[in-house]
Parts: sequence; C-alpha cells; structure tokens
Amino acid sequence: MGVRARLDEIGDIGRDPVRGGYSRHLLDDADLALRDWFRRSAESLGLFVEQDGNANLWAWWGEPGMDAVATGSHLDSVPGGGAYDGPLGVASALEAVARLQAEGFRPTRPIAVVVFAEEEGSRFGLPCLGSRLMVGASDPADVRARADREGVTFDQAWTAAGLDPSTIGPDPERLGRLGAFIELHVEQGVDLEDRGMPLATASAIIPHGRWRLTVDGEGNHAGTTPMVARHDPIVALAEVVLAARDTAVAAGRGARATVGRLAVTPNGTNVIASRAEAWLDIRAGADDDVRTLLADTLARAEELVAAEGCTLTVAEESFSSIVAFDAGLTERIGGILGGVPAIPTGAGHDAGILAPSVPTAMIFVRNPTGVSHAPGEGARDEDCEAGAAALADTLRELAS
Amino acid sequence: MGVRARLDEIGDIGRDPVRGGYSRHLLDDADLALRDWFRRSAESLGLFVEQDGNANLWAWWGEPGMDAVATGSHLDSVPGGGAYDGPLGVASALEAVARLQAEGFRPTRPIAVVVFAEEEGSRFGLPCLGSRLMVGASDPADVRARADREGVTFDQAWTAAGLDPSTIGPDPERLGRLGAFIELHVEQGVDLEDRGMPLATASAIIPHGRWRLTVDGEGNHAGTTPMVARHDPIVALAEVVLAARDTAVAAGRGARATVGRLAVTPNGTNVIASRAEAWLDIRAGADDDVRTLLADTLARAEELVAAEGCTLTVAEESFSSIVAFDAGLTERIGGILGGVPAIPTGAGHDAGILAPSVPTAMIFVRNPTGVSHAPGEGARDEDCEAGAAALADTLRELAS
Repeated sequence: MGVRARLDEIGDIGRDPVRGGYSRHLLDDADLALRDWFRRSAESLGLFVEQDGNANLWAWWGEPGMDAVATGSHLDSVPGGGAYDGPLGVASALEAVARLQAEGFRPTRPIAVVVFAEEEGSRFGLPCLGSRLMVGASDPADVRARADREGVTFDQAWTAAGLDPSTIGPDPERLGRLGAFIELHVEQGVDLEDRGMPLATASAIIPHGRWRLTVDGEGNHAGTTPMVARHDPIVALAEVVLAARDTAVAAGRGARATVGRLAVTPNGTNVIASRAEAWLDIRAGADDDVRTLLADTLARAEELVAAEGCTLTVAEESFSSIVAFDAGLTERIGGILGGVPAIPTGAGHDAGILAPSVPTAMIFVRNPTGVSHAPGEGARDEDCEAGAAALADTLRELAS
Repeated sequence: MGVRARLDEIGDIGRDPVRGGYSRHLLDDADLALRDWFRRSAESLGLFVEQDGNANLWAWWGEPGMDAVATGSHLDSVPGGGAYDGPLGVASALEAVARLQAEGFRPTRPIAVVVFAEEEGSRFGLPCLGSRLMVGASDPADVRARADREGVTFDQAWTAAGLDPSTIGPDPERLGRLGAFIELHVEQGVDLEDRGMPLATASAIIPHGRWRLTVDGEGNHAGTTPMVARHDPIVALAEVVLAARDTAVAAGRGARATVGRLAVTPNGTNVIASRAEAWLDIRAGADDDVRTLLADTLARAEELVAAEGCTLTVAEESFSSIVAFDAGLTERIGGILGGVPAIPTGAGHDAGILAPSVPTAMIFVRNPTGVSHAPGEGARDEDCEAGAAALADTLRELAS
C-alpha cells in the first residue's frame, strides 16, 4: 500500500492544536491509538504481535527465535513534533515486509518489526526508555521513581494503561535472539539534500548529555522591589542561556548546546520569580568534547548566577557516549543500496542503545529542509518509498 | 478575636505545595472556601452579605445606602503568594467592625466591608478585575473573551461557580452609594521598617503597565541543527530579559522592569523552541517614565530579536496611570492615626481603581522584610492589631 498511505492512516492521531504537529507521549491516548494501529497493521500482514515487559511491541514474521533480523523505530514524538521522526521507520518496516511477502519471499531467519517505547523521553525524561530498559542500561527502580510534568508517576501511568510496572527491566533472552537490528529514520539535517541523494547509512551517533540547571533567587513583588535589591533567577538564567550558546559557538563545528525547556516558579506576571530552571542539552564530536563544553558553560554560569545573588544547582539527567554502528553491517547495507554514504548524526536513537549488544545499522531518508522535532519536518513521498524498497532489499539479503 | 486569629482561620486554605505560600485564584476551590469564610465571619457580626454582579462581596453594617464608608481588600493571591497581601485588609476590616460593635458604637452612615474579585489578575490576566468592572474601567466583552492558563474561559469558570457571566459590568448605582473607601494593606517594601513606624497612609500608586512579548523563531532538533543555522527564540528572549533589566537600572531610582512569567513552545528538552513568550511588567514615577522605559526596552529588543533571525510581537495587557489618593481624606486619616507619613507605592490596588470615582485612602501595615508576592511576606502580630485599631478609629470618626 505504500509508506505514504501507512503514514496517512495515523495522520490524525495525536495532533497538537496548540504547538502544531504532533504530541504523542508514552501511554497517552495518542500513543495507545498508535499501538492499536501497529497491532492491526502487523496482524493484517499475518505477523504475530507481542508486547514485552518494557512496553516495546514486537511483530514476528516467522516463529520468534534466534538470529532474528529486527527492524523498526518508535511512534512517540517530542511535544509538537513532526510526522516522520519514528513513525517513518515503523511504517517503512511494515511496508518492507509487505513488499517481500508480495514477491513471495520466504525468510530463512525470523524477521521482527519493533516499536520501542518512549524514544524521545518526552513524558518521563529518559530518552530511549524502552530500549534502555531492555538492554539493562537504565535502572528499573530509577525509572519507576519518575513522574511526568503533571505529577503522574511512572507506576500510575503504567497501571492506568493496564500494564504491570514490576515487569520492566533487562530482557537478555529477547536481546539474545537478535542477530541484527536496522533502524530506518528520517534524516535530521540537510546532508542528503546537499548531496542530492535520497538515502544514507549512519556511521555513528555523536555523544549527548542532558543537565537540569536550577537557579534559586528571592521571590518578591515586581512593583515594590528596587532593581538593585533583587535576586532575580530569571535574569540569572537568561545570562546562563547566553553563556551556553556562546560557549558552544566558540567550541566550533559539531558542538551544540541547547536550552529548549524552561520552568519558572511561581511564574506570575507581577512577581519576581523565586526559581527558574533550564534543561541544557549538549552534543559534540567526542565524549570529552561534551564534558569540556559542559564544564566551560558551568564555570561561566556559576559566576553569572552568583553575581545576581542567586544559587545554581546542576543535575545530570542523562549521558550517552559516542556510539559507532556495526562497520561490517553498515558497509554491507551500503553495498546493497548501491554505495550510499555513511554519515554521523547528532540525534539519539534506539539503534544507538542496541548497538553495543547487537550488530546494528541505520538507514537515513532525505529531509528537504533538515527540520526535525518540529511540524516542518518532512520527507518526499518518492524518498519514503525508496527507503522502504531499500529496507526490503536489506531484509531480503540478510534473511536469505 | 484579633486579626491574627482571623488570619489563622484561613491559614490552611489554598496552600501551594509546589511553590510554597498560597495560590488562591478567582473562583477556584480555595477562593470559594475563602468566600464562604468571609460570609460566615461577616454574618456572625450581624452584617448583611451580598455578592454583586462582578463577584465582589459586600457585608453591610446598617442598611445598604448612600454615603457609605467602605473598607476591605481582596482574598485572591498571586501564584505562591504570601498570607497578608489582601487577606490582611479583609481580616482587619472585620476586626475593626467587631471592635466598634464591642464598644457599643452606632454608625450614622452605613459601613461596608468589601472583598474585591481577582485583584492580582493571576487567573484571567486582568488585575483588579472586580473593581475595574464595577467602575466601568474594563469592557465586559473583553473580560468574557479571556481564558485562564488551562484554557478554561471566563464564562466557563463563572458558570461552573454557579454565577451568571452576563451580569458583569459597570455598577454605577453601587458605586454611587460609596462616600469613602479605605483599604488597609500590608506594606510591600521596607519603608516603614526603615522608619521604625508600624503604620502609614498612601500618597499615590505609581503608574504600571504589562506587556506580553512573543518571540517567534524556528523550532528544530537540538542535536542536529548547527549553532549558526539556528533561530532560537529562547536565546533571543534571554537577550530581551537582560535588556529590560539594564534599561530599568539605567533609568534610575523608582523605575522597575520585571519579567516574572515565561512560556515556551513546545518546551521540550531536546528541541530548539519555536516560540518563547515573556510578560514584561514596568513601573516608574510618572506615566511618561513608564512609556519611555518601554520604548527604550522595545527598541533594543527589536534589534536583539532580529539579530537572532526571530520576530517580536508586543501586546499591551494593561496600563494603569498614576493614581493620587484623596488628599483631604488621607490627611484626615493621618491625623486620626497621630500623624503617620503618607508614602507612595509601586503596587496596584483596588483602591487605585476606585480613587477616580470615590474619595479613597489606604493604610499600610509594616512588613519587616519588605518581601511581598512570595511566601516570605510578613507582618508582626502587634502591627496587625495596631492596623485594625487604626482602621476602627478611622471608621468611628468617619461614621459618627
């Protein structure tokens, strides 16, 4: 039926009327509807669908077993995200299976289409939650102690969806079945557009950390407190935001520092805030580059915050080291696809979490604008179909 | 029973477990409980309680009629506000009536204790909502078009509380009954603490405006978008926050510019924002000073936002010109209280809204820290009782 038609089937699920684009978060109404869609789509291809203890969905072509070739991605989004980041990989995997079935292909290894839970970390703050739990990279107790922005705990959300939170955690048996994992994903940059090519493989995911910066000041009345008597955490945080930007720019090509999320207490129009928080996202070419960029930013931030008479608290929320994908598998797929380039990416992916345990590779599909994590994210229809065809070629060769 | 005991009766209503202090907003559960408390307290003093068409409460000692002496304040708070801003004036008014009744005083003019609705503007963004509507300073259609932060419209909130939103608007008959209005309020600065005096009257409310600044940029992926290719509205807004602070500092003593409220779209950790908003609160000695401070800030902001490749939109949410209180009434009260000083204030009050229509004065009660609109707001017990005694003296003299 085509990748476009599959994406159209979920085009109305989880639209965000305020931010634009889509807001699809772990086990919310949109996510549950998307899971239903996946289940129905896979079952209509004759696949056997199961949900593992970490809320990842697995659709099996052939008996679940050893040396399986898995492909897939995720269905959740950032708040106000695009239509392709995640769903393109799932829809392309279903389409690739459909193409292989249509040509009468009989796989000699089990093929699995997988949907990982909470890849974006938008609800519980832990990106790649489902894959991290499966490989044992995150502590189940830590995950269960989390709450979303509305104060709903992980256990409450899980239970409300009819799931048992005590089942989360490492799943070595399932992991051991996988002989290869290939994630197809929309490119989140303009490299392919610049090269005039529709597809690429991924060489590596550059390292990535997230820190929560809390600035505490002194709440007071906006009308009666003289400017010189203030300890305003929003003013201090504004200085920190600019310091992070300046430090990343100075660090040069490849270094990225972003504050995309803020929280203010009490957040009233006529009140000097008592607390302002920012989430700082840093990525760079090597682990040490990320740590250096963080240290430089925090050294400057400490000074700026102290100058305003406020205090700074820093908490690391996540750190992901550089991930190199399987060179042999990546080269093999590059050859199957007729010699496409292998490019690094600044975005995290479930493929990056599986890579240390399973031979893993990625296929990127050209994005005309390079925009991602926003409604303007895009991919041309013909490139999406080319991606599904490439994935089918890859599965055919690996499972022959 | 004393002012402290009256405040203690409402000490558990509307506590904010996240921000600290109190969050009591128009017609929410806390506000409705406070209204019940006021009604019961007033009725136990034999007062006749009625609610006007703008949700202001009036408790009458004596037949409601012409040339009334009104006193009171408000019960709502800013998010995470203190215990005194508003409730001190209401509790002191009730206590003053109780003292006068205990001494057998018989007023020759009606005395009214009033609670004005939504003085802080924390729910629907319009400070002094109840008094503004009553005097005709705000358009009922504009008010009814508003919604709170959760998207609940004014009409929905009003209807949910069993009120009829079509009754809001000018109330010249009620306004015409008032011969004087005196609002007692906790001081929102340290002037009285510095002077070593418990009480003062108010000379004027300095002018005050609120503007909403919206910066639109380009949402994108935090990991894959090079620093130089960004149009980040949080970065641009950080520059604007600092420009507002710098401009107010440069303008000198008495000028205040505050950003206490921010909103980010989509507000995700791994997403460059597409929109960032700030609410800018400006106060200064004269109307022209406020306009000049705004113009200087916006001129700088336009440059800074354009340099980031973003766009700036500015909307005026409110503007309140300087308000001088009734000189004769203020002098008379100063005399009754034994020659206390008259001091200006940077805070808005319902008294400022009534002043153009009714002879109006204010009494301030010393605040040891000067902190206001925050949990640290305070007043010593003996100062609170002195305030109630002063208010009783004032009512006795005006209504004899």
